[in-house]
This record gives sequence, C-alpha cells and structure tokens, in this order.
Amino acid sequence: MAKKNNNKSEKYFQVVGVNNCLAVLNNSSYNIINIFISEESALKYKNLIVDKKNNKKINYLNKKIFHEKFSRYRTQGLVVTFNGDIVKNFDENKFNKKNSCLLILDQIEDPQNAGQIIRTSECAGIDGIIFPVHNSFKITNSVLNVSQGAFVNIPLYEVTNISRTIQNLKNNDFWIVGIENTKDADLWSNIDYSGKTVIIVGSEGKGIRKNIVNHCDFLGKIPMQGLISSLNVSAAVSAILFERLRQIK
Amino acid sequence: MAKKNNNKSEKYFQVVGVNNCLAVLNNSSYNIINIFISEESALKYKNLIVDKKNNKKINYLNKKIFHEKFSRYRTQGLVVTFNGDIVKNFDENKFNKKNSCLLILDQIEDPQNAGQIIRTSECAGIDGIIFPVHNSFKITNSVLNVSQGAFVNIPLYEVTNISRTIQNLKNNDFWIVGIENTKDADLWSNIDYSGKTVIIVGSEGKGIRKNIVNHCDFLGKIPMQGLISSLNVSAAVSAILFERLRQIK
Repeated sequence: MAKKNNNKSEKYFQVVGVNNCLAVLNNSSYNIINIFISEESALKYKNLIVDKKNNKKINYLNKKIFHEKFSRYRTQGLVVTFNGDIVKNFDENKFNKKNSCLLILDQIEDPQNAGQIIRTSECAGIDGIIFPVHNSFKITNSVLNVSQGAFVNIPLYEVTNISRTIQNLKNNDFWIVGIENTKDADLWSNIDYSGKTVIIVGSEGKGIRKNIVNHCDFLGKIPMQGLISSLNVSAAVSAILFERLRQIK
Repeated sequence: MAKKNNNKSEKYFQVVGVNNCLAVLNNSSYNIINIFISEESALKYKNLIVDKKNNKKINYLNKKIFHEKFSRYRTQGLVVTFNGDIVKNFDENKFNKKNSCLLILDQIEDPQNAGQIIRTSECAGIDGIIFPVHNSFKITNSVLNVSQGAFVNIPLYEVTNISRTIQNLKNNDFWIVGIENTKDADLWSNIDYSGKTVIIVGSEGKGIRKNIVNHCDFLGKIPMQGLISSLNVSAAVSAILFERLRQIK
C-alpha cells in the first residue's frame, strides 16, 4: 500500500551548516541547485565538495551579502539548495532483516521534535520512520536542518493510512509496540524489541490515536519520576531506541 | 565548596505557557511579579491560580495587546514574570540517598539543549544538575521555558570549579562516569549506574574537557549505528538516564 510519492515536484529544499550540506552533497540522488559559501569560509569548504560536477553550482558570496541572505540560520558559512525525493515509497515487504525496526510517528506536528527524532533514529540504527499525510509534521527545511543530515541516511515514509500500514506490517511478521503512559502498559524495559518490530509514539499532548493503540500487540510506558510528568517525545524516542539497541546487541 | 549564589539579584525571569507558569505559581519560593492572561483565556486560568495572594498580580490583557506583547512565544495565553533563586547552593555532603545521581554538563552552551536536559533529568528522577560558571549556558528565559517547568523541581547548581566539585563528590563516595565516544570507553549499557553516581556529558562538538575526563572512574559510549555519527547531547542524556533508571528499578 505504498503511497505515490509526490516529492519529485519543483519544490526545492534549503539546508544549512556543514553536517546537513555535506550529507546532501555526498548523496548522488539529489539534484543540487546552488551552493552558497561565505567568502571567509571559502578555503575551508573548497576541498569538502568532492563531486566536481557540483563546482559550477558554487556561489561565493562576500561576508556582508551572505549575512544579509542567511543571518537567520546557523549556516557555518555554508548553504545548499537542492531538490529530490526526501520521502521514499513505502513497501512493507522489503524489510526482511532479522531485527528490522520501524518507528511510526502519530500526530507529531512540531518540526523540532520531528527533526530530532530523525537524527536520533539514524544514530540508533533503525530502518525507517513512517508518518501520516494528515495531522503530522511535513518535510520542511526546519525538519531537515534539525536532523543534522540524518534525513539522507534513514528512509522517511509518508503514508495515507497508518492503520492499513500497520495491518500490512503485521501480515509481514512485525510485532507492534505502542508507547503510551496508561496503567495497562508494561515498563518500557520489559518489552522485547528484538525481531521485526514497529514502535509507535504519539504527540506529548495527544498520545497515540485510539484506533491505532488498538492495533498494538504490546504497550510500553516510561514512568515519570518527577512532578512535571511530561517527557519530550524525542527524549522518549531516544530512551526507547537505545533500550532496543541494548537488547539486540 | 559551594558557590555563593548571586541569583537573588533584581534580575527577573519570564516564563510562558501552562506547564512553566503553573510550576512557578505553585512554588512558594518564587516572588511573583506579574501574571499576564489573555482575556480570551481568562475563564480557563482563573481557577488554576490557587494562591489567593497572587490574584492581585493578574493582568488581564485584551487579545490584541496580549498578542502584541508576546506574539514571539508559545504562551497558551499565560505569561508569568518572577524573581527568585533558580540556582541552588551546592553542598556535596547532602546527597546521602542510596542511588543519588548528579549530572554534570561540561561546556554545553546551547539553551535548547540545556532546557531539554533539565526536563529529561527531572522526568528520569535524578538529584540535580551541575554546570560551570564559564563556557556554559546561563539560566535564561529560553532555558527555563524549554524545560517546561522542570527547573522548579530539580536542583540546578552552578559551580566555579568543576574539577574541585568532582573531587569533593569522590570524597563523598560518588563514582564518576564520563560519556565520551572514545575507543577506551565501554558500552553505555555495561556501566553500572547504581549507588552514588555522577554522570558527565560534554558538548556535541567538543566533548568533555580532558582534565575532567581524567577524573572519571568509568567512561561509557553510545556507539553510533548510522553514518552521521552525531547524536544530540540531550538525546544522549535521555538514553543514559533511562538506562540508569532501568538498572536501579
């Protein structure tokens, strides 16, 4: 039930900073439109752009103009505009590795959280992130930049119907784990994340939608030890994904 | 070797949103200066402010004026200004609980990371966060707001000399664990975090300063599974603190 990928539009993305820009420049699947380098950083970045065909895309801007154009961002003197398919077509049949793990983000709208989760997921070595078309963050420059280049290395899947996607993954031998702070839920560390596993997290305020919770084979929770009872969703994802890594290592 | 606390100055702080504002209003140690409520939210917040002595500090602003004043923030219609001691005096002798845990932040300057770490640390139930006066984030409105009220419930200690603080903690039976991605470091999950433990993390770019690494009894690392090799420091803290919680539960 793969979604038709509409990302191959005229839409272009802009990433800033060394990590993001090099991740894009070193991946041949993107179409580089422009590389902007602040003149004062010219020497530093000259040798980093190894693909010679990109040399003609470089614009060296003097410090003042570069600053005027990009002062709102932490550029480290380097900005790349490009287009290409950020979102991949989802095919539930292609995950055949023993410990395949997919993360589903339900109703997460904040771009900062989305970007951090992409970054953490790449570092934790999972196989992809699935999010719905509606009531979700979109792939924007903010999300990409917060991910620090991770979006290049971890598949991102936008699907129209999360319930159907989960059903298809179940049919393909995935176990479904929802992270929800309810009294029925087990301690996060008592859940077995080995084998083919889908982990679902919802937004901090709203949690996972009820009809999606109903699909879960297991529910796990991270019990709050303090008074504020509000762990950031990207912090929760980090705790869960590294617990998984601990278990399978 | 407690640092004289200079926070009791005329300096005032401003927090926004329900979590932050209620955390401050429900803690009698702060001096509330003003409570700003957007008129359209008046009914919603009227009963939340339980301490009657604060009623005279409330300013109901009409929607337009409230927006003009605070449009840059996610206020949820509620803003509180206050002063008081955010930073506590550090005394290494007062941590006598069996599994006391302190987190030291070395050279972490980004307020977003600092705020997230305060929030995660409160949720993970540790006993305090220590950071140096120099080359560090400061307690600003941004840090407080990102913490979502957690700063009220977890002690924050600013010290002049981290090395000396560590030495004093060692003399008080703390084990010191540094999180550093070096080849000598053990897997983060092989480290024993039970007992009296100090966990030290450094900034993503610079790590922990060498003279502080030298104080560590153990070094732990979270091996990166992807290509970007750059886990956000607040994500790393979450993985470590919930691994500790798993071990001591």
